[in-house]
Amino acid sequence: MSNGELSGFIGRWLPQIEAEMNNVIGSRDNSVAAHYGMMRYHLGWADEHFHLRPAPSGKRLRPILCLLSCAELGGDPSQALPAAAAIELLHNFSLIHDDIEDGDEMRHHRPTVWKVWGMPLGINVGDGMFTLAFDAIQRLTQRGINSKATLAVLAHFTQTCLTLTEGQFLDISFEDRPVISIDEYMHMIQGKTAALIGASVAIGARIAGATSAQETDMLQFGQAMGLAFQIQDDILGIWGDPAITGKPVGSDILSRKKSLPLLHALNHPQIGDQMQGAFALPVDESQLESVMKLLEQAETRRFAEQQMANQHELALAALEAALGPRAASSPLLMLAEGLLHRTN
Amino acid sequence: MSNGELSGFIGRWLPQIEAEMNNVIGSRDNSVAAHYGMMRYHLGWADEHFHLRPAPSGKRLRPILCLLSCAELGGDPSQALPAAAAIELLHNFSLIHDDIEDGDEMRHHRPTVWKVWGMPLGINVGDGMFTLAFDAIQRLTQRGINSKATLAVLAHFTQTCLTLTEGQFLDISFEDRPVISIDEYMHMIQGKTAALIGASVAIGARIAGATSAQETDMLQFGQAMGLAFQIQDDILGIWGDPAITGKPVGSDILSRKKSLPLLHALNHPQIGDQMQGAFALPVDESQLESVMKLLEQAETRRFAEQQMANQHELALAALEAALGPRAASSPLLMLAEGLLHRTN
Repeated sequence: MSNGELSGFIGRWLPQIEAEMNNVIGSRDNSVAAHYGMMRYHLGWADEHFHLRPAPSGKRLRPILCLLSCAELGGDPSQALPAAAAIELLHNFSLIHDDIEDGDEMRHHRPTVWKVWGMPLGINVGDGMFTLAFDAIQRLTQRGINSKATLAVLAHFTQTCLTLTEGQFLDISFEDRPVISIDEYMHMIQGKTAALIGASVAIGARIAGATSAQETDMLQFGQAMGLAFQIQDDILGIWGDPAITGKPVGSDILSRKKSLPLLHALNHPQIGDQMQGAFALPVDESQLESVMKLLEQAETRRFAEQQMANQHELALAALEAALGPRAASSPLLMLAEGLLHRTN
Repeated sequence: MSNGELSGFIGRWLPQIEAEMNNVIGSRDNSVAAHYGMMRYHLGWADEHFHLRPAPSGKRLRPILCLLSCAELGGDPSQALPAAAAIELLHNFSLIHDDIEDGDEMRHHRPTVWKVWGMPLGINVGDGMFTLAFDAIQRLTQRGINSKATLAVLAHFTQTCLTLTEGQFLDISFEDRPVISIDEYMHMIQGKTAALIGASVAIGARIAGATSAQETDMLQFGQAMGLAFQIQDDILGIWGDPAITGKPVGSDILSRKKSLPLLHALNHPQIGDQMQGAFALPVDESQLESVMKLLEQAETRRFAEQQMANQHELALAALEAALGPRAASSPLLMLAEGLLHRTN
């Protein structure tokens, strides 16, 4: 599959993913229309008066990966549509709740659900969307997937949901601790980010009828890609071009976000103490330069880029194990690498 | 089954319900032990340091109803244990989130989860427990329930979760409206309370291998009992004996809770306007007497008791349809009536 063919694949399947999610959300009794209207708002389909008005939304990376994985392993992507929809609904449920937990007021340039309708309804809308993710998975039986295979997908999906809440638990808990080890951090992003990307491709593979070894390889491919994405995000959060990221230079330093580069510096044998001292105080822009210099001293950027490259290599090896020599020209790799070379 | 036999049934199965839930929650990696520890706290198994210390908890009414229903329809209650655990976990997940949404600080004489650990972790613990409810349901296959039947139970369970979020949506939305119709109120408690009690007995019946007509009858029995319980709660919230309920006389009037009796009065052709006037202002104890007099004038208590009796009658008819003449001596009825004649 060439780059053009990848675009063709996305162009063909993205509308079907949206249609599947739309079917799952359905049209309901008028008295509860707003419950589902809030979901449509969050997904970028409607405005805050629930009028159909497309708005910027997520890239639907996970469901596309799920369908691509299914296709690459010889399956029919249409059979995987219910799982792809479930994965995207799960991802979006977690965003609705994360926005409340983090107090984030904006997402994709629009006010978040809780910001528009309040915290109580926001929590409850998330719960509704979480339920619909489980509803979606069960629709696999309508696409010719037998009961036993549907339950196997469901089991992986459920385990992924649990891992997601564990990752979120760690992320919230880390806020109150001055220093987190690199291992702890990797464990957290494994739960919060990598597990679902891994599940997306592994579930796609299973629906295609892949061997269990291929499914495991795909899981590892997705998880490693997920870790690489997250580390790249962390790098951009400090060294990203403000003109492209839309965030100030050193954004994550100013917000004292415990991202991988900062944890590298905080745990560094030479500069750790200085970093911890700087982090104990509110970091303002005047101190930014000195923190950036400490990161340079610790060669933090090189460390983070190395970590990202390691995950990228693991991902490639896992994909080769699953697909053989075809891996190098797989659209899965193309999609993954396209995302890794983004600059915002 | 006599009253003594009902106690025997509960004594035998309650520990197994707790054990099943405990298995589902499991023991996990040390780094996330607190995530599951908070669940154990909420369920009344542990204190806030996660030390095993039993505390007052819920009555486990729903899982007991599920197992009783299974037994009454000739099934083996042990096969229904995973469903019973799932139902109780779902109920408790909804309590954890409701407590956040309502700002409630105490439950069963202990601080609520969010009150102890904060709102962000509270939401996330609820999400984790919700996930475990779905995990529990899937364990039916380990008890000899085949894949297809497990998926059928899962479909009912998922629909019930969705109805629960719809009921909660209505409940929250009602707060901002001065008057709600009786129909709207019944729709709300159908979602928030009755649907899950209905599902408890219907799922127990299905696992026993009941006919689909029996399953529907049991669903109606449970839903009608659920409505009757809720209306009774509403009656006790106004006329309950403070010495028994632990709440002041007219508690629901003082908190301006839009319960069935108050909605009856607010919608009443004669006294509605006066009630709405009184409700527009903060109601203090000095006004309590005049509101109580208005309720008397409108014969509100008689109305609410009649509504409760109607649901009770519907429940009995549905149980008779499911069980035939045995219904009158069924422990399901005994349990239900025992709960209806409680005074707190």
